[in-house]
Amino acid sequence: MRLSMEAPRKIIELINREELFTVVSHINPEGDALGSAIALAIALDSIGKDVVVFNRDGIPSLYSFLPLSGLVVTDLSDERVKESVTVILDCNSLDRAGLEDAPVSKSVIIDHHETESNFGDLRWIEPSAPATGVMIYHLIKELNVGFTPEIATNLYTAIAIDTGTFRFENTTSESLRIAADLVDAGARPGSISISLYESWPRERFNLLVRMLNTLELRDLTRDSGAGTGGKGQDTITVAITTITHSMFRETGTDSSNTENFSNFPRMISDVDISVMLREFEPGKWKASLRSKGDVNVAEVASRLGGGGHKNAAGFKMEGDIDNVKRRFLETAKKALLDDN
Amino acid sequence: MRLSMEAPRKIIELINREELFTVVSHINPEGDALGSAIALAIALDSIGKDVVVFNRDGIPSLYSFLPLSGLVVTDLSDERVKESVTVILDCNSLDRAGLEDAPVSKSVIIDHHETESNFGDLRWIEPSAPATGVMIYHLIKELNVGFTPEIATNLYTAIAIDTGTFRFENTTSESLRIAADLVDAGARPGSISISLYESWPRERFNLLVRMLNTLELRDLTRDSGAGTGGKGQDTITVAITTITHSMFRETGTDSSNTENFSNFPRMISDVDISVMLREFEPGKWKASLRSKGDVNVAEVASRLGGGGHKNAAGFKMEGDIDNVKRRFLETAKKALLDDN
Repeated sequence: MRLSMEAPRKIIELINREELFTVVSHINPEGDALGSAIALAIALDSIGKDVVVFNRDGIPSLYSFLPLSGLVVTDLSDERVKESVTVILDCNSLDRAGLEDAPVSKSVIIDHHETESNFGDLRWIEPSAPATGVMIYHLIKELNVGFTPEIATNLYTAIAIDTGTFRFENTTSESLRIAADLVDAGARPGSISISLYESWPRERFNLLVRMLNTLELRDLTRDSGAGTGGKGQDTITVAITTITHSMFRETGTDSSNTENFSNFPRMISDVDISVMLREFEPGKWKASLRSKGDVNVAEVASRLGGGGHKNAAGFKMEGDIDNVKRRFLETAKKALLDDN
Repeated sequence: MRLSMEAPRKIIELINREELFTVVSHINPEGDALGSAIALAIALDSIGKDVVVFNRDGIPSLYSFLPLSGLVVTDLSDERVKESVTVILDCNSLDRAGLEDAPVSKSVIIDHHETESNFGDLRWIEPSAPATGVMIYHLIKELNVGFTPEIATNLYTAIAIDTGTFRFENTTSESLRIAADLVDAGARPGSISISLYESWPRERFNLLVRMLNTLELRDLTRDSGAGTGGKGQDTITVAITTITHSMFRETGTDSSNTENFSNFPRMISDVDISVMLREFEPGKWKASLRSKGDVNVAEVASRLGGGGHKNAAGFKMEGDIDNVKRRFLETAKKALLDDN
């Protein structure tokens, strides 16, 4: 990582030169996508640019507290796309941006994820940045725009979401210093945290309690003799939680209410993997996997037709619940212990 | 708050002049008390002082990850107390420090709590500081001691605990900048957070689930005509959770496992007060109260013989559970609605 992150000169020049911008973030947006997009739009507007902020899926209710979130539109005309510079944030492909059928002409990519594609006339990809919000902070600074409380709150939220409010491993000293600057500019950590973490509908809380009641802990142990060349541990503890279709029905909730649920069993000291199984249609299950440290759940998910990152992955499976659990546990044991 | 917090000149001079120090923090210690005490002890040791760190209750297992936590002793000789400077951290009275019977001669108080007493030859009280750890950071800087990874980890933990890892209202830009400096000096936010938030014994998790299953939500409504002069809201939603003596017994846990439990129901958007009732002996209840925003639970607790701060308070009560709940709800309604 460069000691001080700087936006590429060419992006600054393009912004200064052009007049029409369409700021787009990824489908199923979360705080980093939305906060980064709204903050950039406010900044561009303040230097006289004509800006539209588009998100195909709009603002989830959790994020309606973001200042000027009303700027985000879910419709975009072909004319606008053709005539403006499309700035794509927190993802780096047209389909992730919900623009697969749009006539994009000029495009800029600003993202902290490893590149998935080579799309984009100008690309700024910074995998060492903990959030796209950190990159937008630098960009806005280089545009010489002052940080208003609205910009500050959006960027603080962006960085908070992607660092678990400074609890994840990706929390850098730079992200803490930027957060400090944003507080000085008017972001309020206490009220942002209440909006993010203490604003659940009752139904969601009821569903969480139902899910926690299903917790089972299973120890997977390496077959004796297997994997003698591996370096991994010999026992892996799996926390399994289940949400059946009838739990959704009885609590008046759906899959969109389960964001972050799979992290709860991680609180238990000896849990290495948390797997949450959700029956999104009768007999059809979505699994969310979370792991600690070096335990690679992407490897397990990919053997079951899914994917993800080392510590966060997922897959889908059909069948009755006992069968789904058994197949998952067998695959995890093989992938993480016996084949290692 | 002074723009840049500085330790009083007299404390610096005393530290430079004296040789023997006993660093003490409050009974039932948490992260700010312990992290501040250990960090200061390391710093004093590094400039050649003879230091003992005392805590009457020792290090709870949750905090055994703190570097050099082994320095903390639970015994203290009268000779030591007589001969050394007693530095009392994160509290400001002898009984809170577990020293009511000790022959303290020279004493220094360093604390961010509103003063409870006038005890102490030298007193540095900074209620605007979010944590005593912030004050110790400044003190160590003024002593010209370098921040080792051990000092940094202890101070980062101190500040993290008292700001909810930068989620509480007391999170200042200064505390975020200090955290950044501590990360540069070797504190690791990710692993500290795993130690603090993801290292629960299974028994504790089982107890939490049992408690969450008892959740009841009650709406308190102002009597019509009452309190017309008040500015408060007309309805207050209370989340009640209960831990009976038999739940402790059945899960193999005790009161010390319930730290922070009362915060969970705060996640629900419309909850104004969370009250957790714990039966610490059959028929004897301890209540922990947490509130959001301007709802003052100290006022409720004090009417029931307890005390605390606006958003965190407690009281004790005897009786059967239905009776305890009823008396609490009646008092809360009167204190927060009808008398306002």
